[in-house]
Amino acid sequence: MAASELIWPLFELLEAAAERSEVFGAETLQQPDCSITCQTLSEGMSAGVTLVRVQCGNCQISLLPVRGMGIWKASCGDLELGWQSPVRGPVHPMFVPIAEANGLGWLDGFDELVCRCGLHSNGTPDFDQRGILLHPLHGRIANLPARNVVIESVPERGELRISGDVYESRSHFHSLRLRSTLIMRCDEDAFHIVDEVTNLSACPTGIELLYHINLGEPVLGEGSRFIAPLRNVVPRDPRAAEDVKTWDRYLGPTVGYAEQVYFCDLLADAEGYTSALFAAPDGDRGMSLRFKTQQLPYFTLWKKTAAIADGYVTGLEPATNFPNARSFEEECGRLKRLAGGETATFEIDFNIHRGRTAVESAKNSIATLQKDVRPKIADQPQPDWCSAPPF
Amino acid sequence: MAASELIWPLFELLEAAAERSEVFGAETLQQPDCSITCQTLSEGMSAGVTLVRVQCGNCQISLLPVRGMGIWKASCGDLELGWQSPVRGPVHPMFVPIAEANGLGWLDGFDELVCRCGLHSNGTPDFDQRGILLHPLHGRIANLPARNVVIESVPERGELRISGDVYESRSHFHSLRLRSTLIMRCDEDAFHIVDEVTNLSACPTGIELLYHINLGEPVLGEGSRFIAPLRNVVPRDPRAAEDVKTWDRYLGPTVGYAEQVYFCDLLADAEGYTSALFAAPDGDRGMSLRFKTQQLPYFTLWKKTAAIADGYVTGLEPATNFPNARSFEEECGRLKRLAGGETATFEIDFNIHRGRTAVESAKNSIATLQKDVRPKIADQPQPDWCSAPPF
Amino acid sequence: MAASELIWPLFELLEAAAERSEVFGAETLQQPDCSITCQTLSEGMSAGVTLVRVQCGNCQISLLPVRGMGIWKASCGDLELGWQSPVRGPVHPMFVPIAEANGLGWLDGFDELVCRCGLHSNGTPDFDQRGILLHPLHGRIANLPARNVVIESVPERGELRISGDVYESRSHFHSLRLRSTLIMRCDEDAFHIVDEVTNLSACPTGIELLYHINLGEPVLGEGSRFIAPLRNVVPRDPRAAEDVKTWDRYLGPTVGYAEQVYFCDLLADAEGYTSALFAAPDGDRGMSLRFKTQQLPYFTLWKKTAAIADGYVTGLEPATNFPNARSFEEECGRLKRLAGGETATFEIDFNIHRGRTAVESAKNSIATLQKDVRPKIADQPQPDWCSAPPF
Repeated sequence: MAASELIWPLFELLEAAAERSEVFGAETLQQPDCSITCQTLSEGMSAGVTLVRVQCGNCQISLLPVRGMGIWKASCGDLELGWQSPVRGPVHPMFVPIAEANGLGWLDGFDELVCRCGLHSNGTPDFDQRGILLHPLHGRIANLPARNVVIESVPERGELRISGDVYESRSHFHSLRLRSTLIMRCDEDAFHIVDEVTNLSACPTGIELLYHINLGEPVLGEGSRFIAPLRNVVPRDPRAAEDVKTWDRYLGPTVGYAEQVYFCDLLADAEGYTSALFAAPDGDRGMSLRFKTQQLPYFTLWKKTAAIADGYVTGLEPATNFPNARSFEEECGRLKRLAGGETATFEIDFNIHRGRTAVESAKNSIATLQKDVRPKIADQPQPDWCSAPPF
Repeated sequence: MAASELIWPLFELLEAAAERSEVFGAETLQQPDCSITCQTLSEGMSAGVTLVRVQCGNCQISLLPVRGMGIWKASCGDLELGWQSPVRGPVHPMFVPIAEANGLGWLDGFDELVCRCGLHSNGTPDFDQRGILLHPLHGRIANLPARNVVIESVPERGELRISGDVYESRSHFHSLRLRSTLIMRCDEDAFHIVDEVTNLSACPTGIELLYHINLGEPVLGEGSRFIAPLRNVVPRDPRAAEDVKTWDRYLGPTVGYAEQVYFCDLLADAEGYTSALFAAPDGDRGMSLRFKTQQLPYFTLWKKTAAIADGYVTGLEPATNFPNARSFEEECGRLKRLAGGETATFEIDFNIHRGRTAVESAKNSIATLQKDVRPKIADQPQPDWCSAPPF
Repeated sequence: MAASELIWPLFELLEAAAERSEVFGAETLQQPDCSITCQTLSEGMSAGVTLVRVQCGNCQISLLPVRGMGIWKASCGDLELGWQSPVRGPVHPMFVPIAEANGLGWLDGFDELVCRCGLHSNGTPDFDQRGILLHPLHGRIANLPARNVVIESVPERGELRISGDVYESRSHFHSLRLRSTLIMRCDEDAFHIVDEVTNLSACPTGIELLYHINLGEPVLGEGSRFIAPLRNVVPRDPRAAEDVKTWDRYLGPTVGYAEQVYFCDLLADAEGYTSALFAAPDGDRGMSLRFKTQQLPYFTLWKKTAAIADGYVTGLEPATNFPNARSFEEECGRLKRLAGGETATFEIDFNIHRGRTAVESAKNSIATLQKDVRPKIADQPQPDWCSAPPF
């Protein structure tokens, strides 16, 4: 049977979903331990959101095509990845006031494990001198719906691939396409993102892309650690500088905790790969990201260990830039430039570590990257790294 | 039969509605003179709005879960309550530009009999010194969709209860839940709202809640009267001051009439209950509100007796505050403070009076509350009561 | 059979559409060569858009009730009319951030052949002195959904008529209704728009209406010509003034081409009719507009011959005003005033010319209107015509 016969557009699943709860089972996908279900939610701010649940081997992922192909939740065996946001999502973009004059409307929809920020801009809201919003917090891509969503089963590699296109276009200004592919393999405790961002315009442009990868309980807890091969770490603002000595360690849920953000420059191996590990307090569970610093040269660590009710969470954020206002990033030369028609590729491996051995192995890989380089940890915000605090 | 077997989530009704026009009849609800029908509208700005029509004894209510559990229209026998807004609703929140920089987008969806304003803010748009909108006119709650909408039949009390949860949350800022219950009883010319507002955050916060209760023809007409037990009345602005001597009486439809707004401090009985009556011109029909001044201490009367085509209407507005800009109300100490996790309850009885006797009885109750207290009617706006006019 | 039996509301078609791909065929419509199909799109930013395809004789039109009765595409025989916008629509209004503080959100939904701009305002975003947006680019009407959409077949005239109502209302401010009718006849290479705009308020108001009629390939190409009977032509800004000598001729797709806009005063015949022709490079295809200058006294030509990828397009724009900011147009006396309850009618005939003879005939009609009047072509922007450039 030809591989092409194992490709289905999303609308076929939706039609099938109207009749059955498990839309595509192992037999249809021609893979044991694989299934795909689709559900279109109907209540509250989730009305109209189609949730695509993909099961492949040990891992399960809930994908949100309508939220720019974001990943709502994931699990591996009994380990849940994600967080409890005070926003009770998933939230349909029609209920997210991205256009709000203060630029903060994005917050009303933010509750994913993996939320992309971009493509024209991300970071702090950016205003002109009249106080008119130029770029809202974290841009539009997380609140734009995908089209051409396709599910592909590749039995010979034990692989499922779900891809979709998200267009972020404004006549006269920019025309960008994110072609995002989520890849899962039956024999891995992992999943993979391959994103291609294309400048569809004939004119050159600058883009920003940040992966806001967010973890709450149970991986996050008092004593959790962030571990990465470090060249430099800079606190974003005075609030972050307060606790720079414990920047990579975590408190338990803390009522009234105000967020702390650290900008990092990571070391990479000869091929350009780096790795960033988040480990649970007891060191027996964790998740690490593997990516190329050529693709995602700037890394931000977001700590918001507030009360559970207020969203106890940390964010690992590999990006093309730091999440300052776009105009500041442009001044600092951190926009990713794309020629007319040019495509940039961004790939991240999400490796899930279950058991102390797996976590130690991830730590050792990072130690190898760190070698004898001594990280420079600035005790204050640095010019060219940090603009004014966002809000 | 256990009462719990007479509880249905809304989605079951919607599924049933796809097949039958009267979704739940007297037999299903186990109550004579009761029925519930659901209709999802498809045209214009009403597309996607589910209208829940609840019939209980003499009264019928059209409820709008997608507009924050607002009440679109009501009727009691042949008496219609509501108004003809120039906005032809009900309007789905996706068509209401709440995010508009001038803060007036809320007006595009306003056409209900009972429209809640809040929860984080209500009142006049509030701007910072740069002119950036902080809080839009009347806040978000009327344009947020409910979830967990449940219909309950309680045959032993001749009661129907429809409840739903509306979340108003913004990461980093506030996390509020309105749990709203509409109660109707077969033997009453009345309906009841019980609203519980919970601060889901672990941190304290300030909320504002105003019930914008709007009446047009036939209850409103030339010679209609507003009657309440009054301690103080203050005209909001010079426009209201113009006609302060006739502040509680009504003109017929008047082309070009600019709105007049009066702020009131109402008297209450020993238990804290007060009552506010709106009586039709001939004194034989009316509606009164009964509520506790501890829950809703500030009362606003909104008069907009413009031409029929422009929305001939008056608003009775019991609230936690006056509908000035939130920052002004905060300065004046009129925010309702909630500790982390705290819940405040707000209850309003809507009593519908058919026949002169019923109206007179309501008047007498108010006279008893007024006793020999002489109301103070200010002839000019007062500091600490009135900020600048809204628009 | 009575004519009234050949009228169907849209929702009947949508119900029928769920079952059949060709909803209404020749037999149902009682006209040969006529058919109507409806499709509700489900993917990306088109989710929820109902596309109504009307076939009548040689012509086919794709109509968008949810985008203010806009016309997405048209064709006549094998001649396609429309353009390839960088925005991949049709875009549902819920994804168009009209409320954006910079006033440019409208651009995210713009990809039609015929897009109305208005009704309260159109043109450049208009700000108050604080920098708060008063009127967004091109107003709201293109992003408001129609209701009461009705399809009518008139076999005795070989005619199909599709009408719908679009309400643009804001309590306290304005209350307008567009009643739009699209007319097609089996024996014509043409289609017709009859728009009635009613001021539903009892108070007078000022409106603006501009028809943004957009053509790309194949009618637009290097050497295309715009031909109209001209009294005056004024370049909008220095950029337009650069090429005023070739203002009516067209380049091929040009990377980085910045738009050029020309304001025109057209001559009319004794009955008030004028005509504006757009002719393909080889002079054997084209489209002309016929309308009355009393109804649409101001004409704008928009040239944006950018790269194909960036939307190679020109716009012919008959209007009640020039597309400057509304406050500037008001100062210049170019608002269309409507008394309370008053209706203004706007009619445009779209004539499609296939073959050199048809194009020459259209040119000759215009030459007759021009007669011996010598057009005045200003070489610079003129006061009272041109405000600051829009963006």
